[in-house]
Amino acid sequence: MNGGELPWTVAALARAVRDRRLRAVEVAEETLRRIARRDGGHLNAFLAVDAGRARREAAAVDHRLAGGTALPLAGVPVGLKDLFETAGVPTTAGSRILAGYVPTTDARVVQQLSEAGALVRIGKLNLHEFAYGPTGTVSAAGPVRNPHDPARMAGGSSSGSAAAVAAGILPAALGTDTGGSVRIPAALCGVLGLKPTYDLLSRQGVIPLAWSLDHVGILAASAEDLALVLRVLAGPGVAGTVPPRTEGLRVGLLSGVSDGDGVWDAEARAVYLESLGRLETAGLVPVPVPAPGSAWPVLFDRWREAQAVILAAEAVTYHRPWLATRAGEYSPEVRERLLARAGLPAVYYLEAGRERVRARALWTALFQQVELAVLPTVPVPAPVLGAREVPGPDGQPRPVVAALLYHTAPFNLLGLPAISLPVGRTPGGLPVGLQLVAPWWEEARLLAVARRLEEAGVVQAPSPRW
Amino acid sequence: MNGGELPWTVAALARAVRDRRLRAVEVAEETLRRIARRDGGHLNAFLAVDAGRARREAAAVDHRLAGGTALPLAGVPVGLKDLFETAGVPTTAGSRILAGYVPTTDARVVQQLSEAGALVRIGKLNLHEFAYGPTGTVSAAGPVRNPHDPARMAGGSSSGSAAAVAAGILPAALGTDTGGSVRIPAALCGVLGLKPTYDLLSRQGVIPLAWSLDHVGILAASAEDLALVLRVLAGPGVAGTVPPRTEGLRVGLLSGVSDGDGVWDAEARAVYLESLGRLETAGLVPVPVPAPGSAWPVLFDRWREAQAVILAAEAVTYHRPWLATRAGEYSPEVRERLLARAGLPAVYYLEAGRERVRARALWTALFQQVELAVLPTVPVPAPVLGAREVPGPDGQPRPVVAALLYHTAPFNLLGLPAISLPVGRTPGGLPVGLQLVAPWWEEARLLAVARRLEEAGVVQAPSPRW
Repeated sequence: MNGGELPWTVAALARAVRDRRLRAVEVAEETLRRIARRDGGHLNAFLAVDAGRARREAAAVDHRLAGGTALPLAGVPVGLKDLFETAGVPTTAGSRILAGYVPTTDARVVQQLSEAGALVRIGKLNLHEFAYGPTGTVSAAGPVRNPHDPARMAGGSSSGSAAAVAAGILPAALGTDTGGSVRIPAALCGVLGLKPTYDLLSRQGVIPLAWSLDHVGILAASAEDLALVLRVLAGPGVAGTVPPRTEGLRVGLLSGVSDGDGVWDAEARAVYLESLGRLETAGLVPVPVPAPGSAWPVLFDRWREAQAVILAAEAVTYHRPWLATRAGEYSPEVRERLLARAGLPAVYYLEAGRERVRARALWTALFQQVELAVLPTVPVPAPVLGAREVPGPDGQPRPVVAALLYHTAPFNLLGLPAISLPVGRTPGGLPVGLQLVAPWWEEARLLAVARRLEEAGVVQAPSPRW
Repeated sequence: MNGGELPWTVAALARAVRDRRLRAVEVAEETLRRIARRDGGHLNAFLAVDAGRARREAAAVDHRLAGGTALPLAGVPVGLKDLFETAGVPTTAGSRILAGYVPTTDARVVQQLSEAGALVRIGKLNLHEFAYGPTGTVSAAGPVRNPHDPARMAGGSSSGSAAAVAAGILPAALGTDTGGSVRIPAALCGVLGLKPTYDLLSRQGVIPLAWSLDHVGILAASAEDLALVLRVLAGPGVAGTVPPRTEGLRVGLLSGVSDGDGVWDAEARAVYLESLGRLETAGLVPVPVPAPGSAWPVLFDRWREAQAVILAAEAVTYHRPWLATRAGEYSPEVRERLLARAGLPAVYYLEAGRERVRARALWTALFQQVELAVLPTVPVPAPVLGAREVPGPDGQPRPVVAALLYHTAPFNLLGLPAISLPVGRTPGGLPVGLQLVAPWWEEARLLAVARRLEEAGVVQAPSPRW
């Protein structure tokens, strides 16, 4: 077949395979070729690639199609962060702790993708060890590199998912997001990353980092592709065929966060501010939202702190048995991160829970005034591999981990749906992300606005072709 | 009026006042007389008694009745542990920390009682400081004494509630139960004490000890009286007029817990075992329930531990602001209890939460086999005031606090409804309690069985008359 015309997207591949213009086994072969050419020894996005297994899975999809089964994601390769359990395929969490672990069942979302005809067994995707870090540099399989500059971080923890989509190897991938782990690498790699409302997507069979903050999320190169995957995982009620209205939606601007103060890098700031200025051309209405009581940056600091405490307490609880007997098998970074928090007092955890209740009340009130909120995804473009610090808002160095999580972690505390959109690149070619946040259960609004911003040229994602 | 014939019960008083054979103001006067004669300088059950306020409240009830309002608890004095907020009446939690605090609104359950015509403003009831202790000996107002032997503890933390009912001063009282604080003093004072299902009764306006374990409960001298108060607080759906069937109900016996091993004191053990042997005469069917995996005492130890950890973490979180600035105003015992737990690791709290999930699954399965479970309420009769230890199962001394909580605390972890029934007295005259536990939301079954056991003479509560 003449694949040269075909966009390498969820929508185009699913249509072509469903219409029998293309066989799933051809898609699998092409994916394997792309992995070999673009990833191997370069990005380091893939783990456990197995051509035989990939071909068998694709052949089974072709067979089901021939039998007349309706498959919404027929033959679409959808990558899985290696935190999702996959029957018969090693699941490592990027850690030596799980070396040799081969689950016997699929995570619930993996089952859903398989039932929909997606190809999920070609390989797994590299990640920050146990998802506990936003840089994507720490994994038993080595760091993931940024497709826009292999000397830079892909961001994490869903580093392989973002890099594989950004490099045009996969049209979509699943990640998880506990403090920004879908949105951060999406922003640094220049793709779209959606963290839906907490509990919308099943965490069953997903290795936890911090269960009350963990979200399954999706990375893709367009809003349409995100919606197609989301619909399979959440049902048509959430991401229906009729997108919600976007014209005239009020977009909340939070002083000191949504404006230029939220981006510390001057080049990235210029790109972010330009895209912010173009929201109106897409029919959106930016509206300053007055800070209730304390200034927005002060409130965000509180929410960051609460998210960090809850994350630490739950992560240490999950890892405690391994810390007791096999601590030496973690990477030094993740081991130290866990051990440093092992004695965190319960009082802090419970007080963070109370802050969470107050934060939810505040955002409930905020969404009486606006339909969306906008802010940067990250305050800096992709840092170089090995960087421990980045320049802060005052030019003083800030820890890279805290910098990357800066704008995303509060929305894990809140459980609000949030999306990172690629809105341009710095003169040096590094992607810049813009983050939109919607009320609980309104992910369809985020996708509709993202699509509108694509049409208006504000969102600029890669569009690789076969 | 000739009150000499009238039982001093919720049922009889409500009926007499509703039928206008007795005025609420007469009940208020009689209650004040009883407080003066039986409590003052003796039991120490009452706080903030105010005759003028009591008379005004009673007059208002008579006025409402005259206006034709239907009042299910018309003129019934129902005592309030001083942890329930009461508009215009000091609420101290038995602590100097709250000295001078006069709430401006009633707790939700207090509102419900008032609307039903109950007299709730005669005074408040003494308690263990902030409900944080099962002995009833620590309060800014001094210890509560046991009506059966003033040299002994009333039990706590709802010490005043139990003593006032046992002494025939009040026909019923509200308490709270976080580890046994309704059931323990009910058992030691020889009255009935019901802890309904977690969340059945509102905790709004009740000063918390540990919010995920706190239950509002009721103490009275008969199952009928408990049911009348419960119906006002929970609605007729829960404690309806048609009691559930009791004949043939299977009562689970847990080896090492429900049998003689569960009572450490030989005299109390004989009383407990005799009542256990008479369950069949009331139509109940004792059924041994095999321990799943670990032996029952081992499982109960785990649940005690988990309850203690959750209680400590939540209590410390609530008290932290006062501990930081006014620690010297707590009693030494409660201050040390709080400070010793201030650094409890969050991991322990979260692991206790996981144990709680497993415990709920186990009891869900258990209640597939039996309709009730039976065990002692406390392993010892009322200890003498000042005792730090009591003889344990092996004759070795055990801390009195742990001993009193031994059989009750697991059901706060579980949130299951549980009732303590007075089933006799030791040769020395000290009451012995038997505890029944039902599946979630089946408190009506507990009350129906309690009534059946009263008819069968197994339950022996005081029946004071006017």
